[in-house]
Amino acid sequence: MRFARLGDPGAEIPVVDDEGSTFDLRPLTADIDADFLAADPATEVRRALHDRILDPVSAGMRFGPPIARPGKIVCIGLNYRDHAEETGASIPSEPIVFLKDPSTIVGPFDDVRIPRRSTKTDWEVELGVVIGRTARYLDSVEAAAEAISGYVLSHDVSEREFQLERGGQWDKGKSCETFNPLGPYLVPAREMPDPQSLAMRLDVNGIRRQDGTTADMIFPVVEIVRYLSQFMVLHPGDLINTGTPAGVALGDPAATYLRPGDVVDLEIEHLGSARQRCVAA
Amino acid sequence: MRFARLGDPGAEIPVVDDEGSTFDLRPLTADIDADFLAADPATEVRRALHDRILDPVSAGMRFGPPIARPGKIVCIGLNYRDHAEETGASIPSEPIVFLKDPSTIVGPFDDVRIPRRSTKTDWEVELGVVIGRTARYLDSVEAAAEAISGYVLSHDVSEREFQLERGGQWDKGKSCETFNPLGPYLVPAREMPDPQSLAMRLDVNGIRRQDGTTADMIFPVVEIVRYLSQFMVLHPGDLINTGTPAGVALGDPAATYLRPGDVVDLEIEHLGSARQRCVAA
Repeated sequence: MRFARLGDPGAEIPVVDDEGSTFDLRPLTADIDADFLAADPATEVRRALHDRILDPVSAGMRFGPPIARPGKIVCIGLNYRDHAEETGASIPSEPIVFLKDPSTIVGPFDDVRIPRRSTKTDWEVELGVVIGRTARYLDSVEAAAEAISGYVLSHDVSEREFQLERGGQWDKGKSCETFNPLGPYLVPAREMPDPQSLAMRLDVNGIRRQDGTTADMIFPVVEIVRYLSQFMVLHPGDLINTGTPAGVALGDPAATYLRPGDVVDLEIEHLGSARQRCVAA
Repeated sequence: MRFARLGDPGAEIPVVDDEGSTFDLRPLTADIDADFLAADPATEVRRALHDRILDPVSAGMRFGPPIARPGKIVCIGLNYRDHAEETGASIPSEPIVFLKDPSTIVGPFDDVRIPRRSTKTDWEVELGVVIGRTARYLDSVEAAAEAISGYVLSHDVSEREFQLERGGQWDKGKSCETFNPLGPYLVPAREMPDPQSLAMRLDVNGIRRQDGTTADMIFPVVEIVRYLSQFMVLHPGDLINTGTPAGVALGDPAATYLRPGDVVDLEIEHLGSARQRCVAA
């Protein structure tokens, strides 16, 4: 069982995909939003499927992002040893935290706009974590696990010149329009195998660039959630991008940054695959 | 004419304060939100006041933040020469940009929670800018001026150890719960005198700590809005904190950081004054 949102931008309907069939969730909720995520949605939807109160949805609709716009997007930097090494950074002793504009989220097959005056737009496949419970000052990783609603494939698109060469903080290169394709699916935490052993990969124009596994995270998902809750309140619907493995353009002197016309394919095991075409902003 | 939101947290009603009288805006809008701000609210409210279709509101209600929760909070770092100097930083050659969790916003007289394990919670009085039009790639400061809905008194509370000594990016020390008291008023841009000549001050326990003017900004408001629109899309209702003048605890070896029981008073000319009591989180 996995959730999605289908339809035109801004008019998506919430659906559940269960063993190959797709059903309209609107008898249960208007959207995959904070209220729905906070209310044990997997149990409620499982019951509705059993009771056959949901109508099937026809195929062919656009995939939107699988969650409504979050209150915030928190990102973890340099959370894979090989990626930290390829960028010349030292291994962080505690999670590096930055934020991304929540309005950057688009659907998993929508276009990515290369910003005007950009020369270094880069790719980053990431495991996204969606929060299901308000969390502050969690005192254990077990409590952190309880606060996780589900997982999602996330693309943390990044402009390296804006991020690293324009003075100050990384956020400037992380919040350009369309810089967070998300989905296709939100998979409830209880339906997932171990989130720390998921294969992940990203191709640019058919060439494999990232080929990793969430087993290589420096700080695992539950530690990230526990840690973040010491510094900020996590709310239902918030998204956490948990870092990217090696293979980004920043780490490879021979690589070419993204340009209009390029096509990016990415996938994380159990979470589905996505494809974005790059266009000029 | 200035806008506010009155009532219990999460249940505030939108009001307008006009020449000392306060009127309920609910015949016009459910909230001071993106849709309201995008629709030339000053003209609409002026007409409603003239036509006497708004009911008066009784005094004594709590002030909430004067805008609904924004889609994002963008902050400008080190935007006053004297503040950059007191922190030992060089004068930035272009705006330093970071983000703050939008859920940090509270009312102007609400408590500020000193985070657990915090030793360096600091104050920062700032001119807040509220966006009124979707803005991308603005090509002039004149276009930027058109995108501004209004101005608001903002307190960019900051934990300096979290911000500067815990690895990585500033956001970690900027997003703690209650770290952005806002208001009491949103003043429409057309009702404001020059936003670059506003006196601003902040006192801690009755002792003057910050005593500045927006005339000392390195990058003025319209340049900040124009600049940000090159890197991200600004949406109606977004908040920009434009930096703080000298006088924060970080810049004064003799100063004491905020502790439970401390009282902070702050004020910006034409935007009203606020007071927060510090409590333990």
